[in-house]
Amino acid sequence: MPYRHVALIGLGLISSSIALSLRRKDKGIKITGTSRSAKTRKKAAKLGICEVKANSVEAVKGADLVILCVPVGAMASAVMEFASQLDPGVTVTDVGSVKVEVIANVKPLLPDWVDFVPGHPLAGTENSGPESGFDSLFDNRWCLLTPLKDTSSNAVNRLSLFWQSLGAEVDQMDAEHHDLVLAVTSHVPHLIAYTMVGVADDLASITKSEVINYSAAGFRDFTRIAASDPTMWRDVFLNNKEASLEILGRFTEELTALQRAVRRGDGEFMFDYFTRTREVRRGILEAGQDTDKPNFGREIK
Amino acid sequence: MPYRHVALIGLGLISSSIALSLRRKDKGIKITGTSRSAKTRKKAAKLGICEVKANSVEAVKGADLVILCVPVGAMASAVMEFASQLDPGVTVTDVGSVKVEVIANVKPLLPDWVDFVPGHPLAGTENSGPESGFDSLFDNRWCLLTPLKDTSSNAVNRLSLFWQSLGAEVDQMDAEHHDLVLAVTSHVPHLIAYTMVGVADDLASITKSEVINYSAAGFRDFTRIAASDPTMWRDVFLNNKEASLEILGRFTEELTALQRAVRRGDGEFMFDYFTRTREVRRGILEAGQDTDKPNFGREIK
Repeated sequence: MPYRHVALIGLGLISSSIALSLRRKDKGIKITGTSRSAKTRKKAAKLGICEVKANSVEAVKGADLVILCVPVGAMASAVMEFASQLDPGVTVTDVGSVKVEVIANVKPLLPDWVDFVPGHPLAGTENSGPESGFDSLFDNRWCLLTPLKDTSSNAVNRLSLFWQSLGAEVDQMDAEHHDLVLAVTSHVPHLIAYTMVGVADDLASITKSEVINYSAAGFRDFTRIAASDPTMWRDVFLNNKEASLEILGRFTEELTALQRAVRRGDGEFMFDYFTRTREVRRGILEAGQDTDKPNFGREIK
Repeated sequence: MPYRHVALIGLGLISSSIALSLRRKDKGIKITGTSRSAKTRKKAAKLGICEVKANSVEAVKGADLVILCVPVGAMASAVMEFASQLDPGVTVTDVGSVKVEVIANVKPLLPDWVDFVPGHPLAGTENSGPESGFDSLFDNRWCLLTPLKDTSSNAVNRLSLFWQSLGAEVDQMDAEHHDLVLAVTSHVPHLIAYTMVGVADDLASITKSEVINYSAAGFRDFTRIAASDPTMWRDVFLNNKEASLEILGRFTEELTALQRAVRRGDGEFMFDYFTRTREVRRGILEAGQDTDKPNFGREIK
């Protein structure tokens, strides 16, 4: 393990999974953490996730790695609390879903004697809070690091080793590219899922129990995505505006073409479109990023 | 079991699951089936799914229940082959995802000495073909029947018992309402998933391996939906045009409102929207229509 003492700022799904995953690998490592919410601190302490501290100044004391695990919109104010207390040579990283804005907001607040290495583990579930963490969340998932031009390669390598020891594969790219890739693979899919669930919820001619009972025909996968933490997702769209709007524009264009095919009864256009998208699925299964069991191997009571 | 001999027209995921599920319940029941494709007939015979016949006239001989399990667009031509051969008192049903058009196309082809009870089991997976069927596909799933005004209630009750014996719950509604409900819970979600996967596949600035490797952040659920059978889905949109366009219109309206909130940075609007959709998920879990394990309890190598 490349660090002796890891400090977690925020105690939600990701940080509790980091703590549990670290313990699985290294029983002796020191883990401290804090949350602004007294209720969350209490819950995390009761679950034994880490040494829970009353505030972030206490949490980062003596740490050689500090991980920002709060929603993107809360990162700057969190960093302001403890930045001046950091020891020389400490690495600071984050787990935010957008990178350009996080870098713009956080980097100027950090003293120049620490190494800032922005990061983003592509892992998570629809659940939130410290009670939803588990020790295999990062196994075979990707963690993307978006180092700045002046980031020490030593610090990047150490952080890469850290994520690998939690079971993840690590890749590097620049922050702008990260934000565009994630707009496609995550942000816009979430916005669309939220929208579709909103439409269903709005329809006066269809009862709620109809929507709920008959969801198995495709809709329930959307509701899983649309059950994710509202604060986190609001912050994603506030902070990855340009890339989200770019991908949304393309989505609307494509949807309009398919809608036109539906109206005109153009079966050939639809068949070709639906055939092409099957290939993408095959690639994901071959890359080990999903299970090929039908319905994800759901077992329902 | 309310029937002695069930004939399956078409040998895909749904009909093979019906056969396997019937056998689980009643080892003695006679099941015949056929497919237009010689390859599929051979596969189904090898898997021992049912007595495979060379054509539908052979398959329906002596049956007291005939189930149309071909794509919606192929139903009329399938029925034309065998309609005149049906014995008096036979029940004919189907498993099509749209009902108004199926009724319009199939009903006039059937002799008046048979009972036609249109149906739709809300069950399926992203896989297709006789090899993808399994005996628990209908357990705790809903099957919707959309009887016509002149359908004998006796025939409806018998068919309800049949689906219940396969593990399903049965509900009745009129065909128009069915098509609108399904446009919301299934058809438009599928169209949207196909579109999103198409957008990702098109983007020149993002490599295919990036889309595939980083899919775990939300996108992979869309690719599962968008991997469904292209023929079946083409037929759904050709045959449920009005309801699909109605729901697509509402979807576009809502998406435009959310897109505007992203552009204006209206965090409150987004937060409220994202909070409301969580409730729908809760209802689905309480109704037993999905698992509450994170990520559907996926286990990935």
